[in-house]
Amino acid sequence: MPKPSAPAIDPVANLITLIRCPSVTPAEGGALSAITAMLEPLGFTVERMMAREDGTPDVENLYARLGVDGPHLMFAGHTDVVPVGNEGDWSHPPFAAEVAGGELYGRGAVDMKGGIACFIAAVARHIEAHGAPAGSISFLITGDEEGPSINGTTKLLQWAAEKGERWDACLVGEPTNPDQLGDMIKIGRRGSLSGEIVVKGVQGHAAYPHLADNPVRGVIKLAEALMHPPFDQGTDNFQPSNLEVTTIDVGNAATNVIPARASAKFNIRFNDTWTADTLRAEIIVRLDKASADQTLRPGRAPMPYELTWADRPSHVFLTRNDALIGSLTAAIAKVTGRTPALSTTGGTSDARFIKDYCPVVEFGLVGQTMHMVDERVAVGDLETLTGIYSEFISIWFAHAGA
Amino acid sequence: MPKPSAPAIDPVANLITLIRCPSVTPAEGGALSAITAMLEPLGFTVERMMAREDGTPDVENLYARLGVDGPHLMFAGHTDVVPVGNEGDWSHPPFAAEVAGGELYGRGAVDMKGGIACFIAAVARHIEAHGAPAGSISFLITGDEEGPSINGTTKLLQWAAEKGERWDACLVGEPTNPDQLGDMIKIGRRGSLSGEIVVKGVQGHAAYPHLADNPVRGVIKLAEALMHPPFDQGTDNFQPSNLEVTTIDVGNAATNVIPARASAKFNIRFNDTWTADTLRAEIIVRLDKASADQTLRPGRAPMPYELTWADRPSHVFLTRNDALIGSLTAAIAKVTGRTPALSTTGGTSDARFIKDYCPVVEFGLVGQTMHMVDERVAVGDLETLTGIYSEFISIWFAHAGA
Ligand SMILES: [Zn+2]
Ligand SMILES: [Zn+2]
Repeated sequence: MPKPSAPAIDPVANLITLIRCPSVTPAEGGALSAITAMLEPLGFTVERMMAREDGTPDVENLYARLGVDGPHLMFAGHTDVVPVGNEGDWSHPPFAAEVAGGELYGRGAVDMKGGIACFIAAVARHIEAHGAPAGSISFLITGDEEGPSINGTTKLLQWAAEKGERWDACLVGEPTNPDQLGDMIKIGRRGSLSGEIVVKGVQGHAAYPHLADNPVRGVIKLAEALMHPPFDQGTDNFQPSNLEVTTIDVGNAATNVIPARASAKFNIRFNDTWTADTLRAEIIVRLDKASADQTLRPGRAPMPYELTWADRPSHVFLTRNDALIGSLTAAIAKVTGRTPALSTTGGTSDARFIKDYCPVVEFGLVGQTMHMVDERVAVGDLETLTGIYSEFISIWFAHAGA
Repeated sequence: MPKPSAPAIDPVANLITLIRCPSVTPAEGGALSAITAMLEPLGFTVERMMAREDGTPDVENLYARLGVDGPHLMFAGHTDVVPVGNEGDWSHPPFAAEVAGGELYGRGAVDMKGGIACFIAAVARHIEAHGAPAGSISFLITGDEEGPSINGTTKLLQWAAEKGERWDACLVGEPTNPDQLGDMIKIGRRGSLSGEIVVKGVQGHAAYPHLADNPVRGVIKLAEALMHPPFDQGTDNFQPSNLEVTTIDVGNAATNVIPARASAKFNIRFNDTWTADTLRAEIIVRLDKASADQTLRPGRAPMPYELTWADRPSHVFLTRNDALIGSLTAAIAKVTGRTPALSTTGGTSDARFIKDYCPVVEFGLVGQTMHMVDERVAVGDLETLTGIYSEFISIWFAHAGA
């Protein structure tokens, strides 16, 4: 291990500092100030940006840049963490950052203060070994990734872009590896679209069903139509699109009464077969067909239903930037000997916002304990990831500057 | 119209008296005392019986008998009424018993103080014309038919039977006619069985459905299996059995979360193809098959579910007593010229309890306004029904005593 001869050069020390900041969304918890204290000695210009929106908590964010010329590499991440749950269930206090058995315990250890700690250390090492890079490096750090993601990356990107910031590539430090470092780079994400259907029937007595119109029959038929047949079989880079009906609710306490109303909510994770718009159209076709199904209510008009879409769908994206993906793959291979899978699995991340500004990929720690009690990271992994990030910086600037 | 020369001989006067007793379940409201005042002058021995059970309101009931020998004819009914709803919506106050346009308005006018008023008048006329019947007539009047039906007819029958009361036939005075007097006698009722299923899945993130197990898929599959295929095609005397899923509830507010639990409740109205026991067995076969359906969760064990049955199923019954049905049909034909349909449609009634003691049929007023605002009865119908009941008493005693 290198001696901590330069500021912030030790990822373990960086991470211990960050974990001790209790930055559960939306609290800053001292985490952005700690990053400022690490980056400024390295020559970064650090700016804090407070984002506000009615009905949501104010959130602090941070943008830091080293250098003024291109090429310009952005590292993106978040310092906010999910709640600790029952603190008594933890082997080590969640904000104590204790090391035991070669592992560093604490909320955010892998998601994703660890990634930030390593990238800061990698930049410090790059500067120590090679001086400032031939271009610019910036950190885009939000405090609202685990929350509603309204006062975080989107607003921070917009604010920076309005100031004239332009980027050539972005690496997001989310934990992307299922089992060991080097398993997986995320090069895209499925989209996510949510909606609610409300079926309106006619209330009545269970003994006189012909005088009523049971909306439970309707909501079942519509939910079936949402789930079957499959939307697609997957594509070269993506899993099949998948819809889950996440709730059905009627709230009828009277056994003998046919209710007047039934509702269902659904969420679709969709691949590049679809856009949010084409998928919405497909959903409407399915629902219209099901509501008119004559096996549902023989001889009757389509069962009335209302469909509302949730705000802010996440759009599907796929990054095809060879310099970015190639540099990261080469760095991983050099340090770990592994060839990472190029994946688009999992949930959404802030990469879905960044992709509108520059090519973006994601690579970080092993995610197994994220969001769990006893979230922790192998100390050795922090050293290895710092090595990968450091190689990546060298290779990317060599390619991008060429 | 006959002059009210004898006590209680005018059904309109009887009904006005009864409507003015505000006997919304479980309140006695003076209704049983009013009946006592009508029956005692006719020679009836009247007893009041208070029924109690933990967790339910105390309810007053009444049993009255004229005569000591057989044959023994019982008239059964209830003086309790459903709530009036918004009193301001009534054209005439619900407990004022005002006559307008040839109709008598008031809560309980048809369901079923009207039936009681007419049967009392019919007995009074029979006594005036023929003297006391050659046998016994009794009134079994409950104050808990519209409520939970726990402290009403069941307990009253048990109490009377323990005293040695035995009956040869029973007429229940519920409103059975859809459109006009003479349309329909009820000679049986479908059974009613209710249950709840709870499907237990595994909670998880909507982006990782393979790590979760969505109970909404399960509850939809189980609900479908309950509804299809039809249980039967109906029988000679009964409509097809029918199941309604009356509610499905999950209560998951988080769009991105697959829930852990989903529940559904159902109610079946079943005919004499089934008993409650054989129907329960069929339901379990259907649910077990659906939960193991491999299209639901390919390659996985049956989806766990729990089934609980609601208390006190109503058993299906069919009355085949020719003396009872024939006497009533003949009386209707003589007074109205109509041949009533012998039906088993509609909900349950207290006849389901009486059928364990003696043959029972139901015939009363036209039910169109029952349980509604402006419940009312044509004054002419009260006279006609009294005539039918009076003929029925004569014919039945002539047959049963023969
Ligand atoms: Zn994260
Ligand atoms: Zn009734």
